[in-house]
Parts: sequence; structure tokens; C-alpha cells
Amino acid sequence: IENQSDASLQSLLEEVHFADVAEIINELNKEEATYLIKLLDSDKTSDILTELDEDVREGILGNLSSKEIAEELEELDTDDAADIVAELPQEIVQEVISEIEDREHAKDIVDLLRYDENSAGGLMAKELVKVREDWDVLTCVKEMRAQAENVTRVHSIYVVDNEDKLKGRLSLKDLLTTSTKTHISEVYIPKVDSVNVNEKPEEVAKIMSKYDLEAIPVIDEIGRLVGRITIDDIVDVIKEEADKDYQLAAGISQDVEADDSIWDLTRARLPWLILGLFGGAAAAVIMGGFEEMFRRYTVLFLFTPLIAAMAGNVGVQSSAIIVQGLANDDIKGSIGDRLIKEMLLALLNGVILAALLLLFTWIWKGDFLTALAISISLIAVIIVAGFIGTFVPLFLDKRGIDPAIATGPFITTSNDIFGILIYFLIAKLVLGI
Amino acid sequence: IENQSDASLQSLLEEVHFADVAEIINELNKEEATYLIKLLDSDKTSDILTELDEDVREGILGNLSSKEIAEELEELDTDDAADIVAELPQEIVQEVISEIEDREHAKDIVDLLRYDENSAGGLMAKELVKVREDWDVLTCVKEMRAQAENVTRVHSIYVVDNEDKLKGRLSLKDLLTTSTKTHISEVYIPKVDSVNVNEKPEEVAKIMSKYDLEAIPVIDEIGRLVGRITIDDIVDVIKEEADKDYQLAAGISQDVEADDSIWDLTRARLPWLILGLFGGAAAAVIMGGFEEMFRRYTVLFLFTPLIAAMAGNVGVQSSAIIVQGLANDDIKGSIGDRLIKEMLLALLNGVILAALLLLFTWIWKGDFLTALAISISLIAVIIVAGFIGTFVPLFLDKRGIDPAIATGPFITTSNDIFGILIYFLIAKLVLGI
Repeated sequence: IENQSDASLQSLLEEVHFADVAEIINELNKEEATYLIKLLDSDKTSDILTELDEDVREGILGNLSSKEIAEELEELDTDDAADIVAELPQEIVQEVISEIEDREHAKDIVDLLRYDENSAGGLMAKELVKVREDWDVLTCVKEMRAQAENVTRVHSIYVVDNEDKLKGRLSLKDLLTTSTKTHISEVYIPKVDSVNVNEKPEEVAKIMSKYDLEAIPVIDEIGRLVGRITIDDIVDVIKEEADKDYQLAAGISQDVEADDSIWDLTRARLPWLILGLFGGAAAAVIMGGFEEMFRRYTVLFLFTPLIAAMAGNVGVQSSAIIVQGLANDDIKGSIGDRLIKEMLLALLNGVILAALLLLFTWIWKGDFLTALAISISLIAVIIVAGFIGTFVPLFLDKRGIDPAIATGPFITTSNDIFGILIYFLIAKLVLGI
Repeated sequence: IENQSDASLQSLLEEVHFADVAEIINELNKEEATYLIKLLDSDKTSDILTELDEDVREGILGNLSSKEIAEELEELDTDDAADIVAELPQEIVQEVISEIEDREHAKDIVDLLRYDENSAGGLMAKELVKVREDWDVLTCVKEMRAQAENVTRVHSIYVVDNEDKLKGRLSLKDLLTTSTKTHISEVYIPKVDSVNVNEKPEEVAKIMSKYDLEAIPVIDEIGRLVGRITIDDIVDVIKEEADKDYQLAAGISQDVEADDSIWDLTRARLPWLILGLFGGAAAAVIMGGFEEMFRRYTVLFLFTPLIAAMAGNVGVQSSAIIVQGLANDDIKGSIGDRLIKEMLLALLNGVILAALLLLFTWIWKGDFLTALAISISLIAVIIVAGFIGTFVPLFLDKRGIDPAIATGPFITTSNDIFGILIYFLIAKLVLGI
């Protein structure tokens, strides 16, 4: 590709969607990528930049002058522009901002930089169509034409009073079907969902998906309309949230991708593995305390991995259901009810599994009492594992801690230890050692 | 609440958003729920119905006459209406459909019933605004006003030719800023993303979120515009997809919620637990083959839970990263490269963890050779676990099987068995037994 003439490359890429070009550029090295970006016009490259991987984007922006970066920013919506500015090295931010010709746009970007990335303010864009309640439909349409120039997609039209406070919204449909002399105050819908600038992104996502909204206005502490969040940004929030929970359940502690470096992947994976190692060492010490018993009943030893694995599996199942239920807001009733239900469920599962295990061990080893001891232990271990798996995430959630950390290795490790301890104590009791 | 007068209840609920009313109704019994639904007007109740839990909705619809159900359906968009009709008992479907007064609406619903639930056709709605390329802007606006009456939210305006084939789209913005005499064929945007009716929902979700679309037109095999899918339906698809992967990783085989019955939860959880039981039994049999060795080196026994747990943890981490990478389409390079990378990663993690374990065991038991045997085994087990965790999901994906089933209990169980086997073989070798 790199050997072809500029013109043919240009015409080739012109036809391709920017998200696809971004995928190609992610594969290239820094020089090739910069070359391509400079080849295309900023209308398209600005969109490409937002789609690139963070490290690739950093490399390209490092090769561009402040003026070139400013030109890209001018083509972008304020929210995407602010995200890119936030990634720039501190020393060139001021220079880049001062190179932006549209001063209104520059001001909006700077305003957005003030908000915490992890809040509604950090997600919102400044582009929106707003009308004053004291205008008539004709003025409104005129003003909207002007405003629409800067807005990629018109969602709702927001109605504000003369202090810029959000009063309601106007549907495009109503505007298409109302006479031009009507006053806005007569036709607008006074009820409109909105979120506060300080709201958490996950909460905004919940509200928007619960009420099926495509855009939501953002208001500040005194009710003034300061921006709007669109559903495409929320789709990203939902995906990130799901990815994060999935990774926590799998024992990966940072946001990593398969293509990150071995070093990044190690840093994300090692902490939980070390936790598992400590857990295993603790289990070894506990088992060491029962060494005498094992010399006499070696068969008990053979089932420790089974007991530990079942304790881990049941614990992960229980905690996953609770964590998911909490994320989707459909955990009802008290913690007590929830625990009783989980105990009954564990008892049912435990009895079925223990019956199978009893049969297997009895046939294999021909010793009913030992088989019974192992099976009874299994029931007890499953009930305790279910209890821990249910209680810990509910407890963390009540304390305001993300319950997702209590899935995966955390539950597996603690259940391994408890499971083995319970197993030995019960076996000792049943066998009368 | 139920003792209050109808009127006060009515006025109370009128103020509340339908999604919130649905949450309240989910908590009531069948009779109370039906009473409330009959109390409110169908404008609101139809929306409430779509938000209810499936079993609650079934109960309420069972208490309504065909005519009442038909009235609810008339208020709904065709996609939601078709979903509800699909849930009705076969014998009353025809009666309900014949009671719908708007024949056009009834026809659209019946059309939608033909599509597979798990396809773009099953997600789409018939409501859309389309204009012919040979109209002028004035005709277009007039037609749009009529069409907009039936469409809750106007997204894009689609342009079709005289055979109803999709040609492109018209942005609302352009329509607001173009003179009324212009021909549509001169102003429309000839490039528009679309999906085939047979496309999988996950693919539609990927396309829409990659290109940041809020609605996408659906075309049939010969390119005719048959419907459109909106982003709110896609948000549900993305959530369900994420929930499903999460549950598979946690060993839950069906779509269950924390509030389902104990019986449903058992059926979803027991299969993977039984798999785990078989795995544990297999591990016990393997360990049984090494009984002699353990009588002499009891200390080796103490570390089997640790080895099994580490094998499980590493396997789950590796497979989770692969499954997530496949879901997000960012796995690049060949399977061979991927495996080599994972081996290096496992080696790095393994050496760090083994060093810690060596130190611990040496200090605890004072026997360097045994400690060395255990630590070397740990490295080998981690490498094999990483290999299995990487290879199995990639292999399943190549075969067209959902790689998500290869996470959680599947990986944990198989790694337990392999881990223990490798552990004993290496220990035997190092200790020269």
C-alpha cells in the first residue's frame, strides 16, 4: 500500500467508512499512520482519530503540529474533542486550544475539561438545540436552523427559560405539525428526564436504557441546561461496564485487551494469582494439621480437589447471580430472605450431587462409612459456599463497594479454604477419629 | 394501596413514568395487576405491558379479553406488538389480530411474526419515514407529516425508488435547510448502512455501535426496505449478550435471574456442577494411582488444592481475555502467535509465583528438593493451563461454536485434572521416586 501514489490511495480511502479506516491505521506503524492521516482531509481524519486505540492516537498526535491538531478538533463534537485534549501533554494544550479558530467551540471544549471523566459531565457534549419558552414556532425554526449547523444529529429540542433553566422539551414531530405562530410555551412538553452533571455514568446508562431515551439533557446544580448525552456514548459505557465485571469475575484486575503487551497483561493478572497462591498456601497449612488423619484414611485426601472445586463453583455461581442482579437492579427483598433462598437452593443441589458422589465412592472404594462422610461434607461445603457467595457481594454493595470484586478468584480462594476446613472437620466427626 | 379509591389511584399513577409503574406491577399478584392495568388508559398501559416480566405479562393478558388486548396492541409500535403476540396462546392470536381496528397496523404485526426472533427481522419495527427519490421537498414534508403520526421518533428519513428498494437517506438537518422545490434525488445521501433481515442480532449490534448509528434500515434479499432497528433495541441485545457470557463464565447455563424460582435456578446451575463433580471424581481416581508416593511424601499432598486452584485461575484468565477479544473483534494475528504470546506470559507469571512458593515451602518444611519439585510443577501447570485456556476458545470459535462456553467451570474442571496429573508426574521425576 505504502508504495502506491498519494492520489490513488486517497481515492481508495475516500470510499471507506472512518471506523474501518481507523481499524486499518491501528495496524500500521506511527510513521505510516501519520502519513495517512495527513493525506486525508480533516473532515474524515477527525472522526478516524476518535476511533483509534489510545496509544496509536498518541503517536500520531505527537507527529502533528498544534495547528493541525486544532484543525482536527474543530471538526469534532465537543465531547470527542475534549476527550482528545485531555490526552494531550499538558504543555501543548494551551497552544492547541488557542489555534482553534471557532472561539465558541474552543470555549465549550475548555468548559468540558473541567468535568470529572467519570461523571455525566465528562460524557456530555455541548452541541444541542435549545429554544426559549417565550419564542414562537417561527423564531424557533429560524434559530434551530442556525443551531442545527453545529449539531450532527438533532435529538430532542430542549426548552429553557430566560435564565437557561431546563423547562421541558419539544418534539420534532410536534414542530412539523404545529402552526408557525403558536408560542413555544403552549406546545412544549413540560416533563423531561434529565441528569445532574455529577451523576455517575452507570446511573445515566440505567436511566437512559430503562426509559428508552436516545439523548438526555444534563443540568447543573441550579437546574441550568449545560449539555446533553447521547445513546451512542451510553452504549460504550454499558459495554465497558459489562467488560469490567466480566474481567473481575475472571480475575483480571485492570482493563486489558488481548493485544496489550505481556507486561501489561502480567500486571493485570498477577495480583489475583498471588491471592490464589496465598489461599493455596493457607489450605496447605490447614491440611498439614490433619496429616495424622490422612495417614490412616488416605482416601479422604483423594477427594480434596473435588471438594475445593465444588466449593469454588457454587460460590462463583451464587455471587454471579447476585452481582448481575444488583447491576440490573432486580434484587428485591431483604438480605435474610435472599440468604434463606440460597441455602435452600444449595441444599437441593447439594443433596443431588452428594447422592451421586456417595454412589461413586461406595462402588469405587467399597467403604460405605467413608463414602457417607465425604458426601455429607459435600452438602455442608456447598451450603457454606452458597452462603459466602451470596452474602459477600450483598454486604459489599451495602457498604458502597463494587460487588463485582467479590466474584472469581476472591470467592474461589476463600471457598477453597473454608471448604477444605469444613470437609476435614466433618469427616473427622463422622468417622469418629 | 388497593383500598384506596380508583380515582386517587388513577391520578397518582398518571404522574409516574410507565417503566416505574411496570416495576410496581411486577411486585403485585395477578388480580391486583389486572385491576391496575384496567384502571389506566391504554396509551400508558401498552407501554407498561412491554416493560413487565414475561410471566407477569402472561398472567395479565390471560385476564383480558381479545378486544382489550387488541386495544393495547394498537398503541404499540409494531415490533413490541409482535413480541407480545408471539407470546399469546396460538388459539387466541387470530381473534386478537382480527380485533385490531387499524388494518395496516395488524398487517405489519402479522408480517413481523414471520421472522425468526433471533434475526434482524425479529428485532425490526415497521414504523419508519420513507420518501420516494422522485418527490420534491414539499411533497416530502407533506407525506412525512402523515407518516410521522405513526412513528414515535423520527430517526433518519429513508429514500427508496419506485420498487421500494433502499437508495439512501435524507438528514432532517438537510430538510430543515433546503428550499422546498428541490428534488429529493438531488439532496439525498446515496450512502446508507443497512442490514439484511437474516442478519444475527449480535452482528447488527456490532455494526450499529461501530458506526455509532441510532437506527439502521433493514432490507430483504432483493434490497427492498422492510423495516428499521433502533438503538434502544440494540442496547437490550448488547446487555443480554454480556449477561449471557457472564453467566456462562460463572457456570450458569440458562438465562436466570436472582428472583426466579429455586427449581429454575437449580436447573440452570446443576449441569455445570455435575460436570465439576465428574472432574473431581476423575482427579480422585488419578490421585489414587499415586497413593504409594503420597504415603512417603505426604507434603506433596498438601499442595494439590493449591496446584488445582492455580491451574483453574490461570485458565479462566486466559480464556476470558480470548472470549472478550473475540466478542469485540480485536483478536489479530494467527492462533500460533497468540499461543506463543500466552506461553511467554504464563512463563513470566509462573516463574514469579513459583519463586514465592519455593520460598514458602522451603521455610515451612525445610526440604529444598521437595519445595523445588512443587515449584517446578507449578510453572509447568501454569503454562499448560494458559495453553488450554487460550487454545480451546480459539478452536471453538473457528468451528463456529460460541467460545463463551469454554470459560468458567469447563476450563476450571479440565485444568484441575490436567494440573494434578502434571503435578504428580513432575514431582515423581524431580524427586526420583
